[in-house]
Amino acid sequence: MFVYEKKLQYPVRIANPNPRLAALIISQYGGPDGELGASLRYLSQRFSMPYPELKGLLTDIGTEELGHLEMIGAIVYQLTRGLTDEQVRQAGFDTYFVDHTTGVYPTAASGFPWSAASMQVKGDLIADLTEDLSAEQKARVTYDNILRMSDDPDVNDVIKFLRAREVVHFQRFGEGLRLAKDKMDEKNIYYLNPSFDK
Amino acid sequence: MFVYEKKLQYPVRIANPNPRLAALIISQYGGPDGELGASLRYLSQRFSMPYPELKGLLTDIGTEELGHLEMIGAIVYQLTRGLTDEQVRQAGFDTYFVDHTTGVYPTAASGFPWSAASMQVKGDLIADLTEDLSAEQKARVTYDNILRMSDDPDVNDVIKFLRAREVVHFQRFGEGLRLAKDKMDEKNIYYLNPSFDK
Amino acid sequence: MFVYEKKLQYPVRIANPNPRLAALIISQYGGPDGELGASLRYLSQRFSMPYPELKGLLTDIGTEELGHLEMIGAIVYQLTRGLTDEQVRQAGFDTYFVDHTTGVYPTAASGFPWSAASMQVKGDLIADLTEDLSAEQKARVTYDNILRMSDDPDVNDVIKFLRAREVVHFQRFGEGLRLAKDKMDEKNIYYLNPSFDK
Amino acid sequence: MFVYEKKLQYPVRIANPNPRLAALIISQYGGPDGELGASLRYLSQRFSMPYPELKGLLTDIGTEELGHLEMIGAIVYQLTRGLTDEQVRQAGFDTYFVDHTTGVYPTAASGFPWSAASMQVKGDLIADLTEDLSAEQKARVTYDNILRMSDDPDVNDVIKFLRAREVVHFQRFGEGLRLAKDKMDEKNIYYLNPSFDK
Amino acid sequence: MFVYEKKLQYPVRIANPNPRLAALIISQYGGPDGELGASLRYLSQRFSMPYPELKGLLTDIGTEELGHLEMIGAIVYQLTRGLTDEQVRQAGFDTYFVDHTTGVYPTAASGFPWSAASMQVKGDLIADLTEDLSAEQKARVTYDNILRMSDDPDVNDVIKFLRAREVVHFQRFGEGLRLAKDKMDEKNIYYLNPSFDK
Amino acid sequence: MFVYEKKLQYPVRIANPNPRLAALIISQYGGPDGELGASLRYLSQRFSMPYPELKGLLTDIGTEELGHLEMIGAIVYQLTRGLTDEQVRQAGFDTYFVDHTTGVYPTAASGFPWSAASMQVKGDLIADLTEDLSAEQKARVTYDNILRMSDDPDVNDVIKFLRAREVVHFQRFGEGLRLAKDKMDEKNIYYLNPSFDK
Repeated sequence: MFVYEKKLQYPVRIANPNPRLAALIISQYGGPDGELGASLRYLSQRFSMPYPELKGLLTDIGTEELGHLEMIGAIVYQLTRGLTDEQVRQAGFDTYFVDHTTGVYPTAASGFPWSAASMQVKGDLIADLTEDLSAEQKARVTYDNILRMSDDPDVNDVIKFLRAREVVHFQRFGEGLRLAKDKMDEKNIYYLNPSFDK
Repeated sequence: MFVYEKKLQYPVRIANPNPRLAALIISQYGGPDGELGASLRYLSQRFSMPYPELKGLLTDIGTEELGHLEMIGAIVYQLTRGLTDEQVRQAGFDTYFVDHTTGVYPTAASGFPWSAASMQVKGDLIADLTEDLSAEQKARVTYDNILRMSDDPDVNDVIKFLRAREVVHFQRFGEGLRLAKDKMDEKNIYYLNPSFDK
Repeated sequence: MFVYEKKLQYPVRIANPNPRLAALIISQYGGPDGELGASLRYLSQRFSMPYPELKGLLTDIGTEELGHLEMIGAIVYQLTRGLTDEQVRQAGFDTYFVDHTTGVYPTAASGFPWSAASMQVKGDLIADLTEDLSAEQKARVTYDNILRMSDDPDVNDVIKFLRAREVVHFQRFGEGLRLAKDKMDEKNIYYLNPSFDK
Repeated sequence: MFVYEKKLQYPVRIANPNPRLAALIISQYGGPDGELGASLRYLSQRFSMPYPELKGLLTDIGTEELGHLEMIGAIVYQLTRGLTDEQVRQAGFDTYFVDHTTGVYPTAASGFPWSAASMQVKGDLIADLTEDLSAEQKARVTYDNILRMSDDPDVNDVIKFLRAREVVHFQRFGEGLRLAKDKMDEKNIYYLNPSFDK
Repeated sequence: MFVYEKKLQYPVRIANPNPRLAALIISQYGGPDGELGASLRYLSQRFSMPYPELKGLLTDIGTEELGHLEMIGAIVYQLTRGLTDEQVRQAGFDTYFVDHTTGVYPTAASGFPWSAASMQVKGDLIADLTEDLSAEQKARVTYDNILRMSDDPDVNDVIKFLRAREVVHFQRFGEGLRLAKDKMDEKNIYYLNPSFDK
Repeated sequence: MFVYEKKLQYPVRIANPNPRLAALIISQYGGPDGELGASLRYLSQRFSMPYPELKGLLTDIGTEELGHLEMIGAIVYQLTRGLTDEQVRQAGFDTYFVDHTTGVYPTAASGFPWSAASMQVKGDLIADLTEDLSAEQKARVTYDNILRMSDDPDVNDVIKFLRAREVVHFQRFGEGLRLAKDKMDEKNIYYLNPSFDK
């Protein structure tokens, strides 16, 4: 079970509203490579993960990503606080606003509501961990692109923190994959399930 | 942020595998009225919720639902442990198995991957709380239907616990709605935002 | 069966084209809380609704919402009549135009085609009526937001009419829910199906 | 606007429950080529249809399809009336039942909720009428397949009526397309918009 | 099987970047009536197509459309080469950029990822060929609309080539439909499967 | 552009119909980790891939996967040839049959039509190649699961060929990733884009 601790993992304090930037950053809330998908992917994969070390790894990172989801929500919320109707319109935020006002809804920047089709739980430790490596790389690129699009230092400070965490997770999943390989078969150098490869 | 506590909110100990039942119960993991939608709905709505009591209510219940999601995942996992290929085929579990083996994936019983289109964050406290009342009623019916389809006492004991929690949440959201109404306007008896109703 | 009467429930006469506004209002045609979902939800729920009064209520409101869908289509059509290519481009209407020209297609303002995942038919009278209350509140907020974004009096006059109807429907569904409760069980104060609550 | 007339276009009186057959026929309610798509396609296309005869054709057929949607709903409802839990399970109807009980929900037989992605409004009379011809052919095949799968004479009598109506609609859209061509350009033998073809 | 020939069917050489135009043309890559859907529709339908001439027709056109998909990808890529961050932002290309940088992803201009729900394989030769006629008409309109929105001669030269190919395909599918009718039944003037029509 | 060569990459000759098995194998046609996604992913990623060797790698493998898609289509087609209505019903193939007869449609075994949401083009060579490694692992597991569910030697012979190709592709993408890393930065040991990591 989960316990909520009433603080963010890293503080979010944004001085200036910027609905256009909010409309991009929302992709890390509900976009294809965002924190919702990350968290749900890892917390779901752990049920069928056979080794306790790897189950623990998925639980740890999945729980941390829940906190990142919260941080992204806080960024989006602060970037859209106290907007005038005119600011909503001029930023092109009106297509989001009409259906969600300034609520935080899990959607991609493209307007596509988050779908579990963008993640996988394969029930195979090698496939699942490789998917996780891929997920971290894709999340890293989304953060790269946010940094390219944003010149708000309050935002960028938080985004850099989150981006750095994805890099750490990528390394930890890499170690997890090596551990999985070692446990399965010392000679299975192509990371495959040996049962169909003889 | 969230902290993981290594125990379930209520114990799950299922003696006998039953993939057909797993294929139904998965709908409370990733179906239209399941625990993923519940948790994400409440944890998302809280950002724009104006009163601290209501923000706290959404955080509390949203966090508890994360724990329920975990319990449902545990049920599905235990119901599909150690299956033979023949058991998979005979239960009609093969259409799930081919893509996810016995991993726990957020899908409806119908095979539709979870979509954020099944939830809403409206950025309006009355609309959001009414959505929450509706969500709890729909989750309650899904639990009713699982109880109609299942005769496994190990499963039903847990399902009854989860169902009872939805009833409690429904009541708490009802109280939240009354509080919201009181705060907004003593005479706003139809629960409407007064700014467009004069 | 349905009979078409060749007039709108309330007249729509818009003098000036405004593709940007059309791109928002289309959400009441095919968006998550729009008139298509409303109509289809009520007309679908009535099959399993047990009491004739409630079946009639759903049929009445569902049929009226079909007429509202038509009114919204008329608004969108009139707002995009006779546009020059330049007007299409400058309003950012080009991403809609490329696939639909100025045809009226059931999509959300976000660009997401209408999906039945945004509605539910639960086959349980309490859950279905609570969903209906929620639907009316969410539709009301979308109309609020259109009024915030629009300063065209021809449009706003119609939107205010439609918004007022949602308020009436909300009240009628509230009465329907009380009736359902009375019929089910005088003492069932939490609006629950008594079969699993003893 | 629409007026509801309290009778079906053709009577539906089914003596025996058959949830398996219901689970197939639902595809004409909410499947890719069903009556919901048909109705919504025609009623949406009419806004941008330039000639009154064709606008009228779309309105007529679109309104009739609303009545067919109702008939399909009635079939599904009657085929699932009074089921025991055991009948639900044995027919494999349980994956539908868990989320909708015996309510009538707009889904395909495959379990995919109806999506507007399965229809198009192109804002071009030739393209729209060709889409309509295609829609009628596809609906006809679905009815063919239901007749192949069903041996219930009560059901088949209604399905044959509905199938025959699709054939009539196909002919009428064919006539509409010839009319459109005549109106546009006597020599435009390939049914194309002449503005880009010189 | 397919062999790749390292050249485009028709050369694509675009001098000036234009991300706004790229964001429209992408709809012919992954939009509802684009080249991906065309190719996959024809290449899928051929398996159940009963006559070798028609199977060959579908294979020919389906393979050519794969080449058109490649050409559209090349247009999108060239229109977004070497953009500055400022150009990305000013064109409103940022909502695409944040998730895909300048990679070519199969999405509609609306932001909806390509879905097979926008195509059909009915397993009936008349229905499938009518769907194909409809698909070619809809693709033709999308090209019409791109020509309306674009004033780049480098782009328009290629788009006109592709549009002309759709017209040819429409004619060829029309001939295919006549052939199918002849083979099925000389007197089946309404293009129907005779097995249910006596 | 692509040229069709009228033979399969590896012969498919299946003696006995088996619609249940077809309903599983279709997931390699249109499921989340199937050949359509594989092919489209690689053929799309190559536009923004910066090095000719890697562009060539993606083109080669993407083209081969088009041939695998064709082989899977041939398997599904042969497994459903000449079925009686009774065979369709008993195998539970009726929910597919009602909408597609025995045509080959790009859907998952779960009934979810293929969606581009299940793939990504990130426009970043490291992220794209890591996604490709993940895709090959997931496809490998789906083939593992088909082999677990099938005891038809005609089918399994082909599936083993396809599975072996995925293993080869995994190795080649691994080599591609090492090449990418070498080209980008000799010391970039964590496979990251150096522009944001100093």
